[in-house]
Amino acid sequence: MRQLMLLRILVLLLGIVALFMVPALGLAIAGGDLPMVKAFALPMGIALILAAPAAVFTRKFPSRLSARDGFLLVFLIWVFSSLMGALPYYLSGQGITFTDAVFESTCGFATTGATTINDVEVLPQPLLLWRSMTHWFGGMGIVMLTVALVPLLGVGGFQLLKAETPGPEKEKITPKVTATAKILWLVYMVLTAVLTVLFALGGMEWFDALCHAFTTMASGGISTKNSGIAYYDSTFIETVCVLFMLLAGLNFNLYYKLFKGKFREIRENTEGRVYLFIFLAATVILTVSLVPVYGSAGSALRYGAYQAASILTTTGSSTADYMQWPGLAKGILLCLMFVGGCSGSTAGGIKVIRHAVLFKQAGNELRRIIYPRGIFSITLNKKVGRRDVVYGVAGFFFLYMAVIAVTALIVAASGTDVVSSFSAALAMVSNVGLGFGTVGPGQTYAAFPNHIKWLFSFVMIAGRLELWTVFVLFTPEYWRR
Amino acid sequence: MRQLMLLRILVLLLGIVALFMVPALGLAIAGGDLPMVKAFALPMGIALILAAPAAVFTRKFPSRLSARDGFLLVFLIWVFSSLMGALPYYLSGQGITFTDAVFESTCGFATTGATTINDVEVLPQPLLLWRSMTHWFGGMGIVMLTVALVPLLGVGGFQLLKAETPGPEKEKITPKVTATAKILWLVYMVLTAVLTVLFALGGMEWFDALCHAFTTMASGGISTKNSGIAYYDSTFIETVCVLFMLLAGLNFNLYYKLFKGKFREIRENTEGRVYLFIFLAATVILTVSLVPVYGSAGSALRYGAYQAASILTTTGSSTADYMQWPGLAKGILLCLMFVGGCSGSTAGGIKVIRHAVLFKQAGNELRRIIYPRGIFSITLNKKVGRRDVVYGVAGFFFLYMAVIAVTALIVAASGTDVVSSFSAALAMVSNVGLGFGTVGPGQTYAAFPNHIKWLFSFVMIAGRLELWTVFVLFTPEYWRR
Ligand SMILES: [K+]
Ligand SMILES: [K+]
Repeated sequence: MRQLMLLRILVLLLGIVALFMVPALGLAIAGGDLPMVKAFALPMGIALILAAPAAVFTRKFPSRLSARDGFLLVFLIWVFSSLMGALPYYLSGQGITFTDAVFESTCGFATTGATTINDVEVLPQPLLLWRSMTHWFGGMGIVMLTVALVPLLGVGGFQLLKAETPGPEKEKITPKVTATAKILWLVYMVLTAVLTVLFALGGMEWFDALCHAFTTMASGGISTKNSGIAYYDSTFIETVCVLFMLLAGLNFNLYYKLFKGKFREIRENTEGRVYLFIFLAATVILTVSLVPVYGSAGSALRYGAYQAASILTTTGSSTADYMQWPGLAKGILLCLMFVGGCSGSTAGGIKVIRHAVLFKQAGNELRRIIYPRGIFSITLNKKVGRRDVVYGVAGFFFLYMAVIAVTALIVAASGTDVVSSFSAALAMVSNVGLGFGTVGPGQTYAAFPNHIKWLFSFVMIAGRLELWTVFVLFTPEYWRR
Repeated sequence: MRQLMLLRILVLLLGIVALFMVPALGLAIAGGDLPMVKAFALPMGIALILAAPAAVFTRKFPSRLSARDGFLLVFLIWVFSSLMGALPYYLSGQGITFTDAVFESTCGFATTGATTINDVEVLPQPLLLWRSMTHWFGGMGIVMLTVALVPLLGVGGFQLLKAETPGPEKEKITPKVTATAKILWLVYMVLTAVLTVLFALGGMEWFDALCHAFTTMASGGISTKNSGIAYYDSTFIETVCVLFMLLAGLNFNLYYKLFKGKFREIRENTEGRVYLFIFLAATVILTVSLVPVYGSAGSALRYGAYQAASILTTTGSSTADYMQWPGLAKGILLCLMFVGGCSGSTAGGIKVIRHAVLFKQAGNELRRIIYPRGIFSITLNKKVGRRDVVYGVAGFFFLYMAVIAVTALIVAASGTDVVSSFSAALAMVSNVGLGFGTVGPGQTYAAFPNHIKWLFSFVMIAGRLELWTVFVLFTPEYWRR
């Protein structure tokens, strides 16, 4: 019965993904691009044929899934979306293998923004639109999940939440999920629309402006141009991009609070403050270390700020080949890859809040040495938090490092050099998509063997879903009832 | 008053270090090496002149220092030993600068085993003996501190201890520190003597055998030969070395238990089991990945096992240029650098016990997702431990990574490439002394600028003393009474 219900939801999901394809199909029809019409119409047709009876005939099903089922469901939602989203690439006649198509689509829904396609400029526009839209939906999906849905799942929900809700009571952002969801969609769409207009004002074609807005808001970082944002060589476009990357990497809870006029809570948000501090500190160090490279403080700031925002928010696009930068600049970028954006944002990574918790915990341990009988709490958002916030964060930190290490070793076993292996693993788990070595700026994932691409697709989804959600499915206890 | 007492202890310490120099001085006199006689006699004379009145006239001082004073004292013991130990290098007439002398001496007392000396074979024997002996004393010092002394300091003591003593009661290994200390000295000396004989049987000269035994037991890894243990090209010597590196990396508590016939407790020791498992797993993977390099499973095992033991125990010597190894092998070594040996051993690093605690904590978090109302403890040594073990470990893990990152960025700012910067920082904080890039096998630290060598000397001591002990001295609260 539960299995049937899960199946029903997933089949309906395929229908929803099919609806998401409508704009791309429309573009293909408008352009008279018959192969692309087929590439979209075929999967859409099958999905809708499957979904329609599920929507009509199974309405009366009691739709009660436990929080525990939620983990499996969330994982399968990302898997099925990625598989369904892969079909247009595979059917496009652009010589994209099935493995590459799945990798590309998963990069979209996980907002990783990596690619195996060396030349995107030859791709038909409908496919480019779809590529950007998968990121946009993936980004919105994760925000909905962490900000709107998870608080309802209770303690068993996303572990991240424990770090987000430091008070003794769970801080539900609204009792009515649908109301919250609507506000978040609205914020997301308005920001995307504003960004599209700004990009267009900066000199992008409307189509490119829209695609770039989609992926920037999703912390995705892919482009319709091979050289990315750098193609436009526009300080205005890059500045706008930095601003909106940072906005996309903020906890969307803050936009909800803004909507409700809770300005004090926004100002007192620990994670947001630390996030901006890290961005500014990284930008200053990058700028100073880049002056000798670019000859002027202005250019150093331009390229430094862009790369700091792009890596910190796990967008992972680049306007410069930072492999040519000095060691200090590369070191800063490496550190930023381990930080990530804010919780409840479209950004990936370990997340700023977890670093803040562990930083405070390290301080508490120092204090405990001096005052052995003292009890020290973690203060978040100017409120004293539960001490056991640290448990979840400590376990996560270790699991994160372990997943990177195991992934990297498997990649290295396939013949990749050690620097590329570890930075590819980090780039996939943290959804940044960009690293050093063969996954550095201007490179693609095309050369990895097929089994590594599948591994990457898996760890991207695992990283996107905060690891726990996925790894709990691999415990025997999960399946024992 | 307290300051005077600290000063008295430190002056006495200089006298003790001077006594440690007696064998080297004796060797210099026996060899009629006048410059080396001077290089040792001068600092010894000054130290003994300072220490004698402190020993004689201040006997009646009430010798009560608080546990809190202990942190400052322990840090200063390592600093003063390193400075005093640097004088023979500086005065040797071998062209060693003061900075390099301090770096070399600190590498000894911190058992890091790194060096700035490109050709050690031209050094006079008394200096080589002193170099090995600083490691031996440093190794014994840290074992005494963590196994014998710290349990007496109570909760405010080494944070590591909390992980070592999982039970509700503190597991003091003996009520009488002096009795424990004697047993540990005995074990350490017997192991060193046995190892010296085995090395000599393997074909080493007696002097070299003794020096190698000193540094192997201390997880130091330096040699009297430029090419290290590889100089002898002897499977017997390398096998003996692997065995004794592993013995030196075990918690010395276990030898005490062996002495007391508590075999069951030894078998049930979590850290020891995990440590051996990690060594075996790493060796198997290294061997498999090295067969194509060395052509035979035997050679692959020989070089793989040596390097696994050398890195895991933070000995940091090498019998092969692993920079030429495949990515998987290098990746395994990189992971081992983040593990380290057992607590209460002469090895450095994060330590196996902390990884075991975080691994179990990650498992508990997964279980907590499935059973949201469950309370899950960490089981160590087949006993249920206190949950708050995780607090100290989580804080330590973060502090460790932060110290590596900050150190690496400072190194990178001095113009070092990013791989060398990060691996040098890791090599210093974990006391492994060996890394990748310019700090790989067969390389020295000679090329780093002076301020970086001083930074390294500091972080070596901080790493050796489990970070807390040193960083607590930099908090305003420590100095506020
Ligand atoms: K990304
Ligand atoms: K060492």
